[in-house]
Amino acid sequence: MSSVAAEHTATILVSCPDRRGLVAALAQLLYGHGINILDADQHTDSAANMFFQRIRMDLREMHTDRMSLERAIAEVAARFDMRWRLAYGSHHKRLAVFVSKYDHCLHDLVLRQRAGELACDIPLIVSNHAELAPVAQGYGIAFHAFPISAATKAAQEAKILELLERERIDVVVLARYMQVVSAQFCERYAERAINIHHSFLPAFVGGKPYHQAHLRGVKIVGATAHYVTSELDEGPIIEQDVMRVSHRDSVDDLIRKGRDLERTVLSRAVRHHLEERVLVAGNKTVVF
Amino acid sequence: MSSVAAEHTATILVSCPDRRGLVAALAQLLYGHGINILDADQHTDSAANMFFQRIRMDLREMHTDRMSLERAIAEVAARFDMRWRLAYGSHHKRLAVFVSKYDHCLHDLVLRQRAGELACDIPLIVSNHAELAPVAQGYGIAFHAFPISAATKAAQEAKILELLERERIDVVVLARYMQVVSAQFCERYAERAINIHHSFLPAFVGGKPYHQAHLRGVKIVGATAHYVTSELDEGPIIEQDVMRVSHRDSVDDLIRKGRDLERTVLSRAVRHHLEERVLVAGNKTVVF
Amino acid sequence: MSSVAAEHTATILVSCPDRRGLVAALAQLLYGHGINILDADQHTDSAANMFFQRIRMDLREMHTDRMSLERAIAEVAARFDMRWRLAYGSHHKRLAVFVSKYDHCLHDLVLRQRAGELACDIPLIVSNHAELAPVAQGYGIAFHAFPISAATKAAQEAKILELLERERIDVVVLARYMQVVSAQFCERYAERAINIHHSFLPAFVGGKPYHQAHLRGVKIVGATAHYVTSELDEGPIIEQDVMRVSHRDSVDDLIRKGRDLERTVLSRAVRHHLEERVLVAGNKTVVF
Amino acid sequence: MSSVAAEHTATILVSCPDRRGLVAALAQLLYGHGINILDADQHTDSAANMFFQRIRMDLREMHTDRMSLERAIAEVAARFDMRWRLAYGSHHKRLAVFVSKYDHCLHDLVLRQRAGELACDIPLIVSNHAELAPVAQGYGIAFHAFPISAATKAAQEAKILELLERERIDVVVLARYMQVVSAQFCERYAERAINIHHSFLPAFVGGKPYHQAHLRGVKIVGATAHYVTSELDEGPIIEQDVMRVSHRDSVDDLIRKGRDLERTVLSRAVRHHLEERVLVAGNKTVVF
Repeated sequence: MSSVAAEHTATILVSCPDRRGLVAALAQLLYGHGINILDADQHTDSAANMFFQRIRMDLREMHTDRMSLERAIAEVAARFDMRWRLAYGSHHKRLAVFVSKYDHCLHDLVLRQRAGELACDIPLIVSNHAELAPVAQGYGIAFHAFPISAATKAAQEAKILELLERERIDVVVLARYMQVVSAQFCERYAERAINIHHSFLPAFVGGKPYHQAHLRGVKIVGATAHYVTSELDEGPIIEQDVMRVSHRDSVDDLIRKGRDLERTVLSRAVRHHLEERVLVAGNKTVVF
Repeated sequence: MSSVAAEHTATILVSCPDRRGLVAALAQLLYGHGINILDADQHTDSAANMFFQRIRMDLREMHTDRMSLERAIAEVAARFDMRWRLAYGSHHKRLAVFVSKYDHCLHDLVLRQRAGELACDIPLIVSNHAELAPVAQGYGIAFHAFPISAATKAAQEAKILELLERERIDVVVLARYMQVVSAQFCERYAERAINIHHSFLPAFVGGKPYHQAHLRGVKIVGATAHYVTSELDEGPIIEQDVMRVSHRDSVDDLIRKGRDLERTVLSRAVRHHLEERVLVAGNKTVVF
Repeated sequence: MSSVAAEHTATILVSCPDRRGLVAALAQLLYGHGINILDADQHTDSAANMFFQRIRMDLREMHTDRMSLERAIAEVAARFDMRWRLAYGSHHKRLAVFVSKYDHCLHDLVLRQRAGELACDIPLIVSNHAELAPVAQGYGIAFHAFPISAATKAAQEAKILELLERERIDVVVLARYMQVVSAQFCERYAERAINIHHSFLPAFVGGKPYHQAHLRGVKIVGATAHYVTSELDEGPIIEQDVMRVSHRDSVDDLIRKGRDLERTVLSRAVRHHLEERVLVAGNKTVVF
Repeated sequence: MSSVAAEHTATILVSCPDRRGLVAALAQLLYGHGINILDADQHTDSAANMFFQRIRMDLREMHTDRMSLERAIAEVAARFDMRWRLAYGSHHKRLAVFVSKYDHCLHDLVLRQRAGELACDIPLIVSNHAELAPVAQGYGIAFHAFPISAATKAAQEAKILELLERERIDVVVLARYMQVVSAQFCERYAERAINIHHSFLPAFVGGKPYHQAHLRGVKIVGATAHYVTSELDEGPIIEQDVMRVSHRDSVDDLIRKGRDLERTVLSRAVRHHLEERVLVAGNKTVVF
C-alpha cells in the first residue's frame, strides 16, 4: 500500500464495454492533470465483453481542480460509454449499523473503526430491540430503537429512512439485524446496504442456517456478506469465508463458532466497500 | 500414530445408546484378552443419546484367538445393544475405481495407493467410456468398459455388479463417474460406495455445479465426498473442502482449479473409510 | 459437546508411561463411583512410550464424594506412575491479563469471556503503562499499572507477584505485554502463563517480527501462543495460525492484519487451557 | 481470464523507479500498435520508490510486427530506466525436472503439464540416482542420471550444464533434488531455477526440516518454493503454504502429509513462473 496519506488520494471505479484504448485514455487523462497512479487494477470479463477498472491516485501534484478533473472524466466516460464513480479519500463515509440482539458484529465494526481499520464514521446504531442500547452508549454512539410488528412495519421503516436521511448516512450495515427490509429500502440503499448471512450462500438460505447445516451433517460452515436486494439472501456476494466443523459440534457450537466467521466476513466486506473496491455487475461483484 | 505394523492391529467401530459402564466394559474386555489399546476416540451425541467409539488395538500379545475375541465382543455388544464391526489390519480392502473421462482423481488414488498412503488393493477400474483404458494399462490395472444408454443401463449395471462380486470388491469409488447408479446398486454397496461431487453440498446439487457457482458469483467453491445413496447428492457427507475464487475466474478456471479440490477431498474420504474412521448415523457421519 | 451443565462436570488429565490396562483401570474406577464419561481422548507417543488421556465426566450420579474420588484416583495413579490433575467445572479460574499499549487482544478476551466463550473470571488487568486504564474502566475491571525500568524491574515484578497472589490468580495471559518476565515469574506460573508472539515460531524469534517477515519476503505470516518459560519465545507451543500476505503488504499492513491473527490465536490457546485440554510433555504440548 | 488463445498473446513484465506518466506511456505505446490489454496489474513499492507492472496483451490486431514492438518498448524503457522482459504465448518454455528418489513432485508436474495446467514442455529429467528412471520412462521423458560424490561433483555438474544447454532448457525445477547446486549453476539459471524446501522458511532451514518441526512441537508445518541462489534456502520466495498438524503426527506422518504441500506449492510456483507473473526485486518477489 502507498504511504500517501488518505486525504490526498482519490479512487475511481469504472465499468464499460471492453474496447481498445480504454486504459491509455484514462491513464493519459490522469497524467495530463498531474496525477500519479498509486494502484491500478483491472478486469476484463470476456464472456460479457465488459471492462472494469479501479485506480487509486495521488492528488498532491494535481495542477487543476476537482471540477476540471471530474469534467474531463465525464467526457472520456461519455466517449467509452462508461459507468464511473469517484471518491475522495478526504471524505469519510457515514455508516449506520443495524442490530437486533446479537452484539458480536457490532463490537467488531466499532473496534475496527476505532483502531483505524475502517475509514468511516459510525454516528448511528438502529435496532428493532432495546437490548443493545447500553453497548451503543458505552461507545458513545446514538442508538435508536424501532420496535417492529407486522402492523407497524411500514411506518417504522419510513421513520428509519427519515432518520438515515437526516443523518446523511452513506452506508447501511445489517449486522445480524433480524428483520427483512422492504423493497423500497433496498432501492434507496442499492449497492450501499450490506448484510451478513450466517451460512455459505446459496446453501441454507433463510432462517436458522446453523440448524439446517447441523441437520445436513456438513463438515464446513460459512458466512456470506452481500449487498441487500429485494430478494432475500440473493444479492450480489461481496465476501465469504468458512471454517471446519465436525460431528462433535452441536448446533450451539456452530452458533458460537460462527460468530467469529460472521464478524470477520462482515468487516471485510465493509472494508472493501469503504475502500471503493467493489463493483456490482449484474448479480455479481468484482472485488479489486 | 503408533509404530506397530498395521498387520498386527485391528480396529473396532461401535455405536449404541449411551449408557454408563460402556467404556469400562470394552476396555476391560480387551485388557482381558491381552490387547493393548493404541488409539481410542469416542463421541457422545447427547441429543440423540448415542455413543460412538473407535478403538485401534495392538494384537501382538493377545493370548486368545480371533474367534474368542469376536465372541466376547458379540456378548458385550448384545448386552449394550451395540452395532459394531471389527477390521483386521492384515486384510487389505479391495477397491474398484469408477471413472468416465476425467483422470485426475484416478491418478491421485493410484499414486497414493502406490506411495503407501492408502492401505488397499486396486484391482479394477470400471468405466462407461473407453477413454481411460490407456491410463489403466499404464498402471497395470484391469479396465472394464460398460457403455451405458437408457436402454442398456439395467443390463450393464447387472454385469458390473457381477464383476464386482467376482473380484470380491469391498469398496467402490466413483471418481467423477458421470452416471447415476441404481437404488439396487446403492443398497448392495451401502456405506461402501463413495462419490465425489464437485460442489460444496448442499449448494449446487445436480449437474454443472461450477457453472451454477459462476453464475451465482460465489467467492468460494468446494467439493464434497459422500456415501452414495439412492437420493442424488444427498448421502452422508464424509469430507468437504473449499478454495477461494474471484471475479477473475471463468467457468474453465473453476473447472481447472476444482480438480485439485476434487482429488484431495476424494482421497481423504477414501483414506478415512479405509482406516475405519467413519461411522454412519442417520444421514450424517462421525469421522474419528 | 455434551449438554450437561458445566458445574456438574469434572475433567481429568493424565500422563504416564504407556502400559496395558491403563484405560480399563481408569474407566473401571470412574464407573465404580457412578460417574458417566462424557468425552474421552487419549494419545500414545510410542517413541517416548508415554500415554496421555483427558476424560470429561458427568458427576450428577456420583454416589461417593469428591474426596473419595480423588483418593481412588491417587491410588491408581501411584500404581501406574501417573501425573494427573482434576478440575471441577464448578470452579471458574481467575485470569489476569497483562498488556502494554495494544488493546486488540484485551478486547477480544474480555468480549469472549462476557459472551460465555471463556469459562473464567477476569478480575485484573496489569500493565507497564497507563494507556489502557480507560479500557479496563469501561469493562469495570481493576487496572494496575507498574511502570518498569531496568532499575525498578525486580521490585515491580515482586509487587506484581504479590498482587497476583492476593487476587488468587490462576492464569496469566500476556496479551501483547512488552516486557520479558523473570525466570522466577516463569517458575511461579509454570504452565499457567500464556504469551502471544506475533510470528510463526520458530521463525522470527525476538523483536519486530513483522519487520523481519517483511524483509524476508515471506508469503504467509503467523502468530504463536505458547506457555511462558525462561527462554524467550521457546516455550511449549499451544496454538498457531497463519494468513497469506503479498508484495502489496507494507510492514504497517502486516501489523494491522496481524492483529486479527494474534487475538484469534491467543483466545483459542486460552480457551484450550481453561477447558483443561493442554498437557505439557517436555517442550511440547498435547492439545486434546 | 481471457478467452484469447495463448498463442496470440504476449506478456510484458516491467520494473523501474516510480514516476508519473509511466502507465500512460506504456498504455499509449501498446494502443499505438493496435494491441488490446487483456490483463494489467501493477504495484508501487513506495518505500523503495519502485514501480512494477505486468501486462498481458492480445496481439491479434497488432498492425506492426514483433520487431517494431520490441524496439518501441526498448525506447520507452530507456526513457524510464526500466528493466523489462517480453514473453510470447506462442513459445513454450522448456523445463527440466531434477529429482533424487522422491517422485511425488515429479508426478504432479508432469500430470499437470499433460492436463494443460502448465504451459511448457518437459523434455528432460535429471537425477543423481537411477531410482526414478522407470517413472520417466513411463511418461516417455528422457532420463539422465549423474551420480554425484564429493570428488565428482564439479565434473558431473559441468556435464549437467552442458546437457541443459544442448536441450535448450529455460527453466530448472528442483523437485526434491537432494543436492546443493554450485554458485556457478545458480548464476547460470538465476531467476530461472526453482527449488521446493519442505518447511515454512525461514523456519527450519537446512536438513531434515520435518524432524526439526516435530522436535519443536509446532502446530503447523509448511513448504516453500523459491528461486535458487548460492545461499542455501535463502533465495527469493515465490510461494508458501501450510497445513495443521498435531501431537498425533509422528515425523513419518509429517513426511507423508508434507508431500501434498510440497507438490502443490512447487506446482503453483512453477505455474506463476511460466505465466510470467514473478518479478524479483532484491531478495523478494512480486507475484502478480
